[in-house]
Amino acid sequence: MKAEYINPFITSIISVFDTMLGCELKREAPFVKDSHQPAHEVSGVIGLSGKARGTVVFSLGREAALSATEAMLDERPTEINSDVTDAVGELTNIIAGGAKAQLEHFAMGLSLPNVVTGKGHVIEFPKDAAPICIPFGSEWGPVVLEVGLIEQHAAVPQS
Amino acid sequence: MKAEYINPFITSIISVFDTMLGCELKREAPFVKDSHQPAHEVSGVIGLSGKARGTVVFSLGREAALSATEAMLDERPTEINSDVTDAVGELTNIIAGGAKAQLEHFAMGLSLPNVVTGKGHVIEFPKDAAPICIPFGSEWGPVVLEVGLIEQHAAVPQS
Repeated sequence: MKAEYINPFITSIISVFDTMLGCELKREAPFVKDSHQPAHEVSGVIGLSGKARGTVVFSLGREAALSATEAMLDERPTEINSDVTDAVGELTNIIAGGAKAQLEHFAMGLSLPNVVTGKGHVIEFPKDAAPICIPFGSEWGPVVLEVGLIEQHAAVPQS
Repeated sequence: MKAEYINPFITSIISVFDTMLGCELKREAPFVKDSHQPAHEVSGVIGLSGKARGTVVFSLGREAALSATEAMLDERPTEINSDVTDAVGELTNIIAGGAKAQLEHFAMGLSLPNVVTGKGHVIEFPKDAAPICIPFGSEWGPVVLEVGLIEQHAAVPQS
């Protein structure tokens, strides 16, 4: 995956956190994710397909998930409930949609956002699509965005 | 989600298990999934986008995941390792690809398959896309396919 494809995702998440949640994200150094590395407690997952196929995982800890939901709904949930998973799914959709708009040449469509919960869950990418992982610091604790994207070539069938 | 859209996924998974794994699946009654219902220990997740947006989740227990991997690699893994997650991701891709081919009018593309592991993980769908859940029995134990699909209308932007 080319590093230049990652920038639209970085600008999108920073902008969404700033404008929708009033929360400043501080970007840390991106790295290629090792296999079997657990995500945070709540992860939004959305698929991308078109001239590139990929997945975006937006993973955040309990405190960040509760605070982001509070910023969206003006009410703080007491636990990781369906309000939280809906909010994280919607944020994942908006972050991926913002990046997609900047990667027009891939003509990508978005799948539905799903949200994975459960302490210690691990989200694996295919071997040939090791994702770039971008950690961010925030007043709500760590937030991570993982993006794995493979360019499709006309000679290779998509499925 | 219309029930007729589910049949291509059912015929696809039964055919993939039969021809690739030599394992007969016995279909049980489909139901609409309640929120917060845990999946089995290993779940393949793949996104669909196009004139319909959706997600396919292929979830199976430890024994079924190990046996399916053994059938594909001719060697039995001793634990849920990257061979298992690669095999489950590939199966998810083939199952979704087979169904996609039968739903040509949606002109759907597939995202990359991701595989979620971790006991007690839960995969939530968006509120407006409650998935149809199709359980199957097999000699390897239970296997579940969940499909949530929303038709896109031209007036509604996709993201």
